[in-house]
Amino acid sequence: MQNIKASIITIGDELLIGQVIDTNSAWIAEELNKIGVWVHRRVAVGDTWNDIWKALDNEAAISDVILITGGLGPTADDITKPLLCDYFGGKMIIDEATLQHVTYLFEHVFKRPMPLLEVNRKQAEVPDVCTVLKNDVGTAPGMLFEKNNKLFVSMPGVPHEMKFIMQQHVLPLLKLKFDLPFIGHRTLLTAGIGESFLAERIKGFESSLPQNIKLAYLPNYGMVRLRLTAQGEKEKTENVLNEKFSILKKEVEDVMVIDEDISFAELLGRLLKEKNKTVSTAESCTGGYIAHLITSVAGSSVYFKGSVVSYDNSIKQNILHVSDETLATVGAVSEETVRQMVKGVLKVMQTDYAVAVSGIMGPDGGSAEKPVGTVWICVGNNNSAETKKMHFRFDRKRNIELTAINALHMMCVFIKNGN
Amino acid sequence: MQNIKASIITIGDELLIGQVIDTNSAWIAEELNKIGVWVHRRVAVGDTWNDIWKALDNEAAISDVILITGGLGPTADDITKPLLCDYFGGKMIIDEATLQHVTYLFEHVFKRPMPLLEVNRKQAEVPDVCTVLKNDVGTAPGMLFEKNNKLFVSMPGVPHEMKFIMQQHVLPLLKLKFDLPFIGHRTLLTAGIGESFLAERIKGFESSLPQNIKLAYLPNYGMVRLRLTAQGEKEKTENVLNEKFSILKKEVEDVMVIDEDISFAELLGRLLKEKNKTVSTAESCTGGYIAHLITSVAGSSVYFKGSVVSYDNSIKQNILHVSDETLATVGAVSEETVRQMVKGVLKVMQTDYAVAVSGIMGPDGGSAEKPVGTVWICVGNNNSAETKKMHFRFDRKRNIELTAINALHMMCVFIKNGN
Repeated sequence: MQNIKASIITIGDELLIGQVIDTNSAWIAEELNKIGVWVHRRVAVGDTWNDIWKALDNEAAISDVILITGGLGPTADDITKPLLCDYFGGKMIIDEATLQHVTYLFEHVFKRPMPLLEVNRKQAEVPDVCTVLKNDVGTAPGMLFEKNNKLFVSMPGVPHEMKFIMQQHVLPLLKLKFDLPFIGHRTLLTAGIGESFLAERIKGFESSLPQNIKLAYLPNYGMVRLRLTAQGEKEKTENVLNEKFSILKKEVEDVMVIDEDISFAELLGRLLKEKNKTVSTAESCTGGYIAHLITSVAGSSVYFKGSVVSYDNSIKQNILHVSDETLATVGAVSEETVRQMVKGVLKVMQTDYAVAVSGIMGPDGGSAEKPVGTVWICVGNNNSAETKKMHFRFDRKRNIELTAINALHMMCVFIKNGN
Repeated sequence: MQNIKASIITIGDELLIGQVIDTNSAWIAEELNKIGVWVHRRVAVGDTWNDIWKALDNEAAISDVILITGGLGPTADDITKPLLCDYFGGKMIIDEATLQHVTYLFEHVFKRPMPLLEVNRKQAEVPDVCTVLKNDVGTAPGMLFEKNNKLFVSMPGVPHEMKFIMQQHVLPLLKLKFDLPFIGHRTLLTAGIGESFLAERIKGFESSLPQNIKLAYLPNYGMVRLRLTAQGEKEKTENVLNEKFSILKKEVEDVMVIDEDISFAELLGRLLKEKNKTVSTAESCTGGYIAHLITSVAGSSVYFKGSVVSYDNSIKQNILHVSDETLATVGAVSEETVRQMVKGVLKVMQTDYAVAVSGIMGPDGGSAEKPVGTVWICVGNNNSAETKKMHFRFDRKRNIELTAINALHMMCVFIKNGN
């Protein structure tokens, strides 16, 4: 069994001035992890010759596999390909298969009336010391290099192109080339208990863990995820991991929400499918974000019928039939309003369950009585409903996320409790 | 004027197994950039003593300012603080101000009935060789170290705590300590032209740029952003940057969408406010995501009235009054359906403009005639409407994003064209 270490190098000034958030690295790390490769370091550097060269030297000194994304486009700021050619001591040649593919793409997919430009032809150039990794979904091919027993893979930074090359070429290659260990994770989510109190409670458990199992605390959204990670020979390691995870689940039973690393939207979908029931949402302050989370799950059309985003009070009145009196007396951000929103959307959408939210997300719109961050949530069905008032202290974006997560959590608990 | 280089080190296994996407680094980089500090490298390492130590050595060798986030929590997997204490040759002491703050938080904000735990007291421990950077919004303080004329700042990984410490302490300190250059960016967005054809068109412009101005191409969503970045003495640099940006705008005039780095949702808001008009959405396949993008903009309640997410056909019929015949003959994913959805939502929401989408986002639900990725978009008002059929070739998440971006783009163009 070989313990293979990987480094990820991402290239591009946009990553260093904050214009783009790097989501590629997380995806690559997760996929590598699944096949037993441990990502050791991730480095982001700009489109600068010396910085990229140095990063290659640095990472090659400590890792066995170096995955590089970005800087392969057709324009002058993309210097990765000539640099790699120099770094591995090759010279540029046209790769005929890639040229055919690029020509085909421009003629038949992009349907450009113009002839292929010199820069497009350049997309088909590769260092003669690399193995070309065919990119069916874009113009820039992946490239594989070997030096001093280290593997280097260069891929485009466009997420779906990088993913294609990883899945088609890189992951199968690594599995074939190395005798990889098993790496397993077990994650559970707790709510209603702080990280430190949780740690205090399970410190006996934590000290009982063998060397090859690590416990991590991931606090977020007022909840704490606990993750056990084990590495080793598959069968034995998986057995110990499962055993330890069972013990952990018992120790936090009363505060545990889910014993899997799935979102509340996925959990909600599972609960609804089990019961063959449907749900709808009536959203004010979240502006459709709850519906978006629900419909991000593939297959959600089975149990999700729709949503009324009633941002303006007239929509609350006309479509959801919130009473004028309620809006005039207690206002849109009130327990009575969200109760009526649930009733209204249950009726208009004809669903078994519904969730409604109304609140003030900021930065403006708060008052002394109802400051920014005040939210009312209601979940219910035709028989009963539950409400909750919450206060969030963050910026608009995070307040919206927190409201949605808490609303979905409440909906799951409501269904789980037999309603 | 000093050219100060910064490195960002993020610490945490969760960043290396793909469980968490690092958004902190992009934010830090953007803020540093604004005050004239150039981020040179970003490194992510796990909760491993040697890896963190080595990262500190590496980054200190090339950067003047090293910003570190993560690993400051109260639990056993958080090793950053003792490590920094060792690294800078200090010993741990209790910081009385932090202890008072932590005690206050637990008693009055978290309202824990239990006494302060030993691990919570530990949150107030700091190396005696650091300057404490007070964290008003959390328990873990920031810490400032100096060694060989390099500045090291350690901050918690929780985004809003990190942001507080950056804004309150770190950014003002850097501005005070160094004579920083001006760094300016100008960004514009083009649509309908490929990166390589764009590059071909403006290659004369690109070669005319002075050394201190860089041009970058950022392709995404079938559009290409062009960014000019300049560094130098403020007044002179800004003048040249503005002059070059004017030339660039002229060269791409016919394909330019916006000459700012703002989202389509922000642009839509601006256009609507200028005209004092309102908008609503009727969404099938995007499941509320367009409404979410619109309402992510602060102040959107002025021009956004609401949305009907009509995931199920019954909602299209009952609330939006799409005709049974249309659904039975040409189906939900059709030009006729999105036209009727726009009409329906204009009426039920009483807005000036509306946008509607219907499509198949995948992975299932496609057919030979309407494969996954087929989308109809309609934008309109009470006088006219425009429709467009699109095909996306990606995964569910990206198909939803692309549909929403294109729908918002169409809505902006429709309004801009005087409708």
